[in-house]
Amino acid sequence: MDETYIFGHKSPDTDSITSSLVMAYLEKELGNENVVSCRLGNLNKETEFVLDYFDIEAPKLIEKVEDGANVILVDHNSPSESVENIENAQILKVVDHHKIAFETAYPLFVRCEPVGCTETIMIKLFEENGIEIPKEIASLILSAIISDTLLLKSPTTTDDDKKAVEKLAAIAELDYEVYGLDMLKAGTDLSSFSIEEILALDAKQIDFKDVKSIVNQVNTASIEEVMAMKEDLEAGINAIIEKEGLDLFMLLITDIVNSNSQIIALGNDAALVEKAYGVKLENNTVLLEGVVSRKKQVVPIMTENA
Amino acid sequence: MDETYIFGHKSPDTDSITSSLVMAYLEKELGNENVVSCRLGNLNKETEFVLDYFDIEAPKLIEKVEDGANVILVDHNSPSESVENIENAQILKVVDHHKIAFETAYPLFVRCEPVGCTETIMIKLFEENGIEIPKEIASLILSAIISDTLLLKSPTTTDDDKKAVEKLAAIAELDYEVYGLDMLKAGTDLSSFSIEEILALDAKQIDFKDVKSIVNQVNTASIEEVMAMKEDLEAGINAIIEKEGLDLFMLLITDIVNSNSQIIALGNDAALVEKAYGVKLENNTVLLEGVVSRKKQVVPIMTENA
Repeated sequence: MDETYIFGHKSPDTDSITSSLVMAYLEKELGNENVVSCRLGNLNKETEFVLDYFDIEAPKLIEKVEDGANVILVDHNSPSESVENIENAQILKVVDHHKIAFETAYPLFVRCEPVGCTETIMIKLFEENGIEIPKEIASLILSAIISDTLLLKSPTTTDDDKKAVEKLAAIAELDYEVYGLDMLKAGTDLSSFSIEEILALDAKQIDFKDVKSIVNQVNTASIEEVMAMKEDLEAGINAIIEKEGLDLFMLLITDIVNSNSQIIALGNDAALVEKAYGVKLENNTVLLEGVVSRKKQVVPIMTENA
Repeated sequence: MDETYIFGHKSPDTDSITSSLVMAYLEKELGNENVVSCRLGNLNKETEFVLDYFDIEAPKLIEKVEDGANVILVDHNSPSESVENIENAQILKVVDHHKIAFETAYPLFVRCEPVGCTETIMIKLFEENGIEIPKEIASLILSAIISDTLLLKSPTTTDDDKKAVEKLAAIAELDYEVYGLDMLKAGTDLSSFSIEEILALDAKQIDFKDVKSIVNQVNTASIEEVMAMKEDLEAGINAIIEKEGLDLFMLLITDIVNSNSQIIALGNDAALVEKAYGVKLENNTVLLEGVVSRKKQVVPIMTENA
């Protein structure tokens, strides 16, 4: 069989990177030997911390796939978040925890659940197929769940995620709370990034009905520290809005310790944020208390109000 | 919790009807007590045979759902094949074996696999959740797999379907080959149907790219018997083409004993059939040898050539 490329979304986070590694391991165990774990962009600081900590090699960086290539999509399904030329690839499987935003001309294996992390679903695939989870794989899955659920504090967290963390922490022999906070903090280090890089770190193109938008999320232990760059961030955002022809750019500066997000919203449709949350932007910014999940607390409410 | 409505596609076949019954049983076992097994149309003769044989009540006939209604889609996912007002319902789960043709604004439980029958996937849900399959449920699932795979002879048949049939036949205490042929033959009895009814029996609106089409499939033990009605069928088809503004109507008259299909193709884009299969229509009709599966042998090849 031809090679099968396994990858998460563009601007990959820890779930996307480790999902491709974990799914590749699983596929090999299931007899699909010819799999390549891939990524569609640079590692963020948090994921670098994870791979360094466990001394694991990063997936292969790819930009596009050939016509007819076999692919497995993890942690995403929308073509807009996927590899270049995805429309001409053969999607064998999708394992994901996002809304459904793709179509196919053929039936395929799709495993989506509304859980906090893609890999919470993968654990079930291991179990169902009677495949043991080795220590290294458990460490990767554990890291992804902690990352996606902000240490099980995000409203996206489900009982399945919690159970998975308990189970995996035992296999990985890790104090997950200590390790998890170190990992999340590593992800908040923005010192080596340019403004352009910060604005692309976890940027997703998400159109709220007709409102063409990018929503970028930056985790931090100190909102003030990030807001000190506000002027430069706004200049960078306005450049992206012009270049991409956007109606809205939302930057979520998420305080991972106190579980709030400071929003910077620019673009002709910035008022959509005010309408959706019943707030008033002042100098293009507002604090949304308790909002930490783009998927659960931004996408549905913005879509509904668009 | 509010009621949850579970239903298969319009013009329901045996898989759609029994899927809604089997999924309702499964949901109840999983603790979702308030489920209603539904159907979006009249029973066909084959499904009548099945429900009569096992003395099981048909699901509730519904036409539309209220705004915000909780639904579980089985054996379909496309809004065009679903209930009226599906776009304003809350889809909790999808269990299906067709191509992906829906979108959501929220993550949800989706379980699709490229197997012969929706219920081959449901068996896995029973197993994963440690729920036993009772005799009556086994009989329903068995009937659906036999129906969808034409007694395991359709090219859509997978090893999972075959294994399921072996297992279920034991639980149901049925000689599945004898029962299955009786069931399939019951489904070929067109004597009580008007031409309009025959043309709606298993009709699916499937657009091949820009070619707006309906593909209807009628199983038979004798192609000649159905072709005796050709003139009336063509008149009926032309009326539907005009009413619905179609570019193409394909009628597949499928010989379940010899595994061939006689095609009647009408509409401005009827030549797409010639291009797709490298054949020549004569008097609007042609025999496609070995073609029995709309999903596997019609949709992809017609889409590719459109």
